[in-house]
Amino acid sequence: MKTGRLEAFSDGVLAIVITIMVLEMKAPEDTTFRGLLSVVPIFISYLLSFIYLGVYWNNHHHLMQVTQKVNGKILWANLHLLFWLSLIPFTTSWIGEHNHHNEALPVATYGLVLLMCAIAYFILERALVIHHDENYALTKLSTRSIKDYISLGIYIAAIPLAYVNTWLSIGCYILVALIWIMPEKQLEELMEEIEE
Amino acid sequence: MKTGRLEAFSDGVLAIVITIMVLEMKAPEDTTFRGLLSVVPIFISYLLSFIYLGVYWNNHHHLMQVTQKVNGKILWANLHLLFWLSLIPFTTSWIGEHNHHNEALPVATYGLVLLMCAIAYFILERALVIHHDENYALTKLSTRSIKDYISLGIYIAAIPLAYVNTWLSIGCYILVALIWIMPEKQLEELMEEIEE
Amino acid sequence: MKTGRLEAFSDGVLAIVITIMVLEMKAPEDTTFRGLLSVVPIFISYLLSFIYLGVYWNNHHHLMQVTQKVNGKILWANLHLLFWLSLIPFTTSWIGEHNHHNEALPVATYGLVLLMCAIAYFILERALVIHHDENYALTKLSTRSIKDYISLGIYIAAIPLAYVNTWLSIGCYILVALIWIMPEKQLEELMEEIEE
Amino acid sequence: MKTGRLEAFSDGVLAIVITIMVLEMKAPEDTTFRGLLSVVPIFISYLLSFIYLGVYWNNHHHLMQVTQKVNGKILWANLHLLFWLSLIPFTTSWIGEHNHHNEALPVATYGLVLLMCAIAYFILERALVIHHDENYALTKLSTRSIKDYISLGIYIAAIPLAYVNTWLSIGCYILVALIWIMPEKQLEELMEEIEE
Repeated sequence: MKTGRLEAFSDGVLAIVITIMVLEMKAPEDTTFRGLLSVVPIFISYLLSFIYLGVYWNNHHHLMQVTQKVNGKILWANLHLLFWLSLIPFTTSWIGEHNHHNEALPVATYGLVLLMCAIAYFILERALVIHHDENYALTKLSTRSIKDYISLGIYIAAIPLAYVNTWLSIGCYILVALIWIMPEKQLEELMEEIEE
Repeated sequence: MKTGRLEAFSDGVLAIVITIMVLEMKAPEDTTFRGLLSVVPIFISYLLSFIYLGVYWNNHHHLMQVTQKVNGKILWANLHLLFWLSLIPFTTSWIGEHNHHNEALPVATYGLVLLMCAIAYFILERALVIHHDENYALTKLSTRSIKDYISLGIYIAAIPLAYVNTWLSIGCYILVALIWIMPEKQLEELMEEIEE
Repeated sequence: MKTGRLEAFSDGVLAIVITIMVLEMKAPEDTTFRGLLSVVPIFISYLLSFIYLGVYWNNHHHLMQVTQKVNGKILWANLHLLFWLSLIPFTTSWIGEHNHHNEALPVATYGLVLLMCAIAYFILERALVIHHDENYALTKLSTRSIKDYISLGIYIAAIPLAYVNTWLSIGCYILVALIWIMPEKQLEELMEEIEE
Repeated sequence: MKTGRLEAFSDGVLAIVITIMVLEMKAPEDTTFRGLLSVVPIFISYLLSFIYLGVYWNNHHHLMQVTQKVNGKILWANLHLLFWLSLIPFTTSWIGEHNHHNEALPVATYGLVLLMCAIAYFILERALVIHHDENYALTKLSTRSIKDYISLGIYIAAIPLAYVNTWLSIGCYILVALIWIMPEKQLEELMEEIEE
């Protein structure tokens, strides 16, 4: 089996998930500046989730480019990833809709979904590596990097942190997003600087 | 006519149908654990329907890979299948929305739509086989397997069963989904075991 | 310019338009047979519109297969067609939502949108023919057939007929749909000729 | 990296954004001519935004056709553009929903989003030019034309103008749309040159 249609389907789902979130941003009833301000928390949730989905699309893109073939297990691992990614709009709207930024449960649930996405992505990588012998690029790409460990650690910390202070938790999610947008090189230099 | 655009269009529709269901999962009004629990039945309906649509996408993918050409009849057989698949979100939300899990009609309707999907898929297979002479792979793939007969039997049983006990009926749908996710080999072994 | 991306974009829009209509089919509040019956008019509207969009997709598919290149004018003629097609869900829901089957204006508006789609399709065909010199297949495919004249005539009759009796008008729309689903042997034969 | 999947994903997002706007056009409650008239402002907003998104899709199409390769920075520049484009339905519905055509803030916000789209498109062009050395077509295509300067100037003027008279502001947006639909002979000639 070729990867073409798996990519097309994943692109379709991701494109829809990313744009469905905008539907949550209902136009404010009144036309005052205050009305516009009232959608700001939803806007920020949307922006953050947009970045997360963008990061996953980018990484998925990279992963599939070094992949030559897929099997049934990989198709299901991919659907499993798409399932968790498709829950992001739901948790995004729960956080944003009634200014639930300072309520623990929605913020913790958001983190849980992000954690499940990361685990699902890891499972997909494993399934791909097992199916390809001696694919150097794939092995290298799916080797757990410092980025992966930091992200995972932050997610696990952020979920209980939501019960201490939700803004700490949200800060953690923003931090992970920033780690992933930053070009790899800059990040490595930053890490070295910190070590010194 | 090539199969390319038929695949692209089907992927598009399936990707949308699968993600539209998430729209039914409205974020709970309050932020208590109870609020989160209130969306659990919808979540389960969503998960089940996601798996069903995933199974259809996988099978469609396999079917199209051994297909070389399509004609007008096949295009319509495919649209017919997409029509019934597109009704899954509607029945899913009817079951999930007001905890209608223990009401017979929504559960029976869900089963009816699944049955119509199975029949539509069968019609598509027939149309493809008729259009391809001596395509060994296609003939083999579309030969009714034990899986097909079991699924069909369970659907037909599950619809009236909804009027006895809806959970029996839902159990049937879960069973069919499990039969289809299980890799073919394991299933065959399981069937042999049961026979012995 | 190649036709690839124009096809992909059109497929995307058509796939969304066709599935967005399902969103209009809200699950009935109660779970009685009566509740299910209450969505029947919406279901029929949906079915009819699904068939119309299927017909357009099929014809668009055929048209693009004999097309080699596109220019700016063709891109806009295509967007113009997609615009009118994207209004079908709006008129469909207006007819179906409050059992407006026996009210003249929604039914007439539905016919008007269908008429505009037919005109937009005609403009697209013209733009394609002008851009391709001596493309035998395209010229033949876009030659006004008896089908086109009948459809156009019926649309123009159906709009004022809605003010006499809406069911007459709806009958006209069903008639046109039936004319177009009927397998067109000539077309298929033409397509095969071209391939050879 | 090839441009194929970036195009597919962008097509997906644009197709969804363009069709999501129709969802805002709720069928009128009553079936009088007045009811139909009540959706006219939303219809006009929809038409204008449809044209804008069509223009961006056309230009994106042209840009990608002269592009051979993409890198991480370009992927993000593209996502950045899609982000602002995806906000168009939100601002469109804010203007259209409650006849907010004569209220300054929604109209100014609409202009701001259009301005951000133009800036994001400019950034994408820059990223592409930097990544391609001596790509004559790309350099020429992304050279700021008189069209770009006029559009930018009009946007910047239209935002404060909304506080003077919203119709002046809306007239500005219509003007920019018209400038971009007008057939651009130069561009077409350039495309033909490249093909040869």
